[in-house]
Order: sequence, then structure tokens, then C-alpha cells
Amino acid sequence: MTDGRAIDIVHAYYDSWKRGIQSFDATTVRSLFASDLVYEGPIVERRIGFDAFLPGLTRFVQSVRSFSLIQELQGEGEAAVLYDCDLTLPAGKHRFAEFFRVRDGKITELRLLYDATEYRKLS
Amino acid sequence: MTDGRAIDIVHAYYDSWKRGIQSFDATTVRSLFASDLVYEGPIVERRIGFDAFLPGLTRFVQSVRSFSLIQELQGEGEAAVLYDCDLTLPAGKHRFAEFFRVRDGKITELRLLYDATEYRKLS
Repeated sequence: MTDGRAIDIVHAYYDSWKRGIQSFDATTVRSLFASDLVYEGPIVERRIGFDAFLPGLTRFVQSVRSFSLIQELQGEGEAAVLYDCDLTLPAGKHRFAEFFRVRDGKITELRLLYDATEYRKLS
Repeated sequence: MTDGRAIDIVHAYYDSWKRGIQSFDATTVRSLFASDLVYEGPIVERRIGFDAFLPGLTRFVQSVRSFSLIQELQGEGEAAVLYDCDLTLPAGKHRFAEFFRVRDGKITELRLLYDATEYRKLS
């Protein structure tokens, strides 16, 4: 996997959680990310390090009922994916966009975008 | 332009508005889109037709102070772009993701994603 194409790494990332927390494999997820991951998202804005990213991902995966791919593009060392998830919290269908940069078989940058309106009501 | 690559069409789209309303050229924009455009976004969810899309784009462009590209990917008949804009309303920096499908030199599908929290406060 360390020499895989960016899109293969990204598919492995989705495979690790898209069926929800029952099949979530944190060890596999960790193997896909650089330890100094740069993560950006609507609420936390920016976090550095996989360990800072994992708790938020885990909470999200606990809410995932289903995953539906809409569009994905791949480039040299990068990928972009648009998908919908049916969630338990916030309940209903939510859309997500993720833009990845991959180097040496690890995701080094992940920029996530979604409409955080319903998420902000939870906090 | 009708035989251009998807990414060239998408660049022409951004060039038509990224310097704000002063340089916005609705005629050029119209030439880049299929008349039966499928548009999806956080607030309107789904609209069919370029004429249903243009008023929202125009209001957005009136608020644009600057455009900053973060990442873009291209594929056969598709593109994905992540960018920030500094806006006057809602004031400040906002992030946007757009996923395009292009056919015969026209954008046929545009899926826009952003955190609409501040936008919802305006309506």
C-alpha cells in the first residue's frame, strides 16, 4: 500500500469506516495517514497530527448509517471525493467533500468541507 | 472553447467572476453552461437550468473581494476545485468546493459545497 496510487489510499480510508463503527479499524486508518497530517475542516479550522484528527473521525464514524459516492477525481499525489452519508447525529443525509494530498503512500493533507449548520446546533 | 478540456471551461468560469462584480461577464458565463444545468448546493439543494442558477451566482459575485485557489483536479469531462473567497457578505473568508461535469464544452452539472452557517443567518 505504501507505493499505491493516491486514490487507492483514499479508497482504503473510506473502506475503513463507510459501513459504520462496527467495522471501523483505527489501526488500518492510522497506517494510511502521515503522523504530521494537516487537517482542515469547518469547525476546528486546522489541526496538525493524526492523533488530533482521530477522535473527530471516530465520533463521525459512530454516526454513519450509510455512505454514497457522488464523484471522485484523482491526480498525481492527490484526490478529491464528494459523497453523501446518512447519519444518526445530526440525523439525516449530509454531503461532504474531501480534498487529499498523498506522499509516499500516506495522506499528508486532508481538507474536509460540509455544511456545519446542524453540527453547530449540537455543540 | 466548445472542444476545450473540462478544466479550461472551469477556469473560464472562475475568470468570469473571481475579480468581483465589476468584471463579471454574464454573457461569457452563459456560454460555459448547458441550458439544462443541474446545480446542487447547501441551501437550494437542487435547481435545474442555467437561468435558475444565474441569480444566485450574481448575488455571490457581488460579495466577492478576492479568490484564492487551494487545490484543483481534472479528469475526463470533470473537475473539482477547492478555494477560499474573501467576501463582503457574509463578511470574511469562506471556503468552497465545486465538483463539475462537462460535456461538449459545457458545464452540465455543478455541485457546490460550503459551510452555510453564516449564509443562513442572512435569510
